Amino acid sequence: MTERSDTPELTNTRAERVAAVRALSGRSARSRAGVFLVEGPQGVREAVRFAAPQVREVFVTPAAAERYDEVLADAAANAVRVRTASPEVVAAMSADAQGLLAVLRAAETALDDVLATSPRLVAVCVNVRDPGNAGTVIRAADAAGADAVVLTGHSVDVHNPKTVRATAGSLFHLPVVVDEDTAGVVARLQRARLTVLAADGSGSHDLDDLLDDAGQGQRPDLAQPTAWMFGNEAWGLTPEDAALADAVVRVPLRGKAESLNLAAAATVCLYASSRAHRS
Amino acid sequence: MTERSDTPELTNTRAERVAAVRALSGRSARSRAGVFLVEGPQGVREAVRFAAPQVREVFVTPAAAERYDEVLADAAANAVRVRTASPEVVAAMSADAQGLLAVLRAAETALDDVLATSPRLVAVCVNVRDPGNAGTVIRAADAAGADAVVLTGHSVDVHNPKTVRATAGSLFHLPVVVDEDTAGVVARLQRARLTVLAADGSGSHDLDDLLDDAGQGQRPDLAQPTAWMFGNEAWGLTPEDAALADAVVRVPLRGKAESLNLAAAATVCLYASSRAHRS
Repeated sequence: MTERSDTPELTNTRAERVAAVRALSGRSARSRAGVFLVEGPQGVREAVRFAAPQVREVFVTPAAAERYDEVLADAAANAVRVRTASPEVVAAMSADAQGLLAVLRAAETALDDVLATSPRLVAVCVNVRDPGNAGTVIRAADAAGADAVVLTGHSVDVHNPKTVRATAGSLFHLPVVVDEDTAGVVARLQRARLTVLAADGSGSHDLDDLLDDAGQGQRPDLAQPTAWMFGNEAWGLTPEDAALADAVVRVPLRGKAESLNLAAAATVCLYASSRAHRS
Repeated sequence: MTERSDTPELTNTRAERVAAVRALSGRSARSRAGVFLVEGPQGVREAVRFAAPQVREVFVTPAAAERYDEVLADAAANAVRVRTASPEVVAAMSADAQGLLAVLRAAETALDDVLATSPRLVAVCVNVRDPGNAGTVIRAADAAGADAVVLTGHSVDVHNPKTVRATAGSLFHLPVVVDEDTAGVVARLQRARLTVLAADGSGSHDLDDLLDDAGQGQRPDLAQPTAWMFGNEAWGLTPEDAALADAVVRVPLRGKAESLNLAAAATVCLYASSRAHRS
């Protein structure tokens, strides 16, 4: 690693390559190039570990190369190309890199590939527009042991840098499917024998009651394979979208709050399923 | 309301009053004046309903006055002073007002006042620095039916506009105590017979196991009055702070995620307590 620390390969902040990487913060550049940015040590570490074939290039400052040497060791072990760059070059590529960023090929996962694995827990984000919220749901789905996340309708681009950062690496831990057709996705989940539950404050089922009854054969039964639908952060699920589900479930609100934020509600629902699946 | 729609009282964006309100986005102006900003219809509505004696003034555009007439009716019923202002004036006061904002007197709640009410569920944020996270925890605590939130150590200013917005009005639903002395707060909670649980990924107790055993007299027993300690978003609780608690509890991580974000973990813990208290 010593020679890397001495002379970074890339030192020209005006190089075309630098501008091309920086442009990946915009959706049009991402979709043109078919690649996206992963910023910061945690994201790059998980990308190199779990999605090495997608990694085109890693850029690292000499200081970050020393500090995160285990990430670079993983990169070397997985034949990932690493280029050292001056702090100025990395900063010009991204304001959120903390010395380490990667460019990855955008890989698409089809819902059928997920269904072929007999998933037991799936999170469906319907028209989720806030990048941080979408990323936080992906992270929570991973933590709760979900098998996949599906983004439907006009949800945020999953490769938005804020979304990628908010996943904290979970983007590389479980398949994330993008499919605009909400009704089609729900129908296919149901055909694959998942119970589809819509999370909504107006739900006729209380989540705690469902958890009490899990495994007792009542419907909906949280112990069964389940897909949760979560709606837009401002307006929730439309009545039409909620009506696609087998049941509408509310997270109990015990204080004076009118609602939980989307990511918090999603986390509570996914953990309830994960708890019901445990036994 | 018609006369209000015609001629706003305030139209001069350069007025001293406008600059004084705008300055409340900064901590020093807030602490000098002993007041803070509440931006947007949801926050103002809850402030007027639940904290009317603290509301110094509400500013509203003619359009927002029509759209949120029920908020202004509540204001009138609670003798809250409302001033109409041009859209330009409101926009100059705050970029996040959506036509409606309020200036409130900062009111302090002492921990002893909370303890006097025999609380059953309290959230303690230790060195929580991100304004959005702190606000989201306050909102989740409200939703889970918690009796209070305490911010200790060097936590973010609860009157930071981002924090206030993230609480979505919950700031006015339950007492929020600010007390730097983490050890002192924990000791006083324990003397008030609350079990203090530190939420930490390294915890020796699994949250789901505690929920299984709740009410069976084992320790810690989630069915008992409980205070949860949540640490900083980046580094969690220090070992010293975690050691103050009666037990350290981990939220189970079932996928490959290393952690949940702070607000998500707090929500899961608070809802587990709320579930245990239900029976």
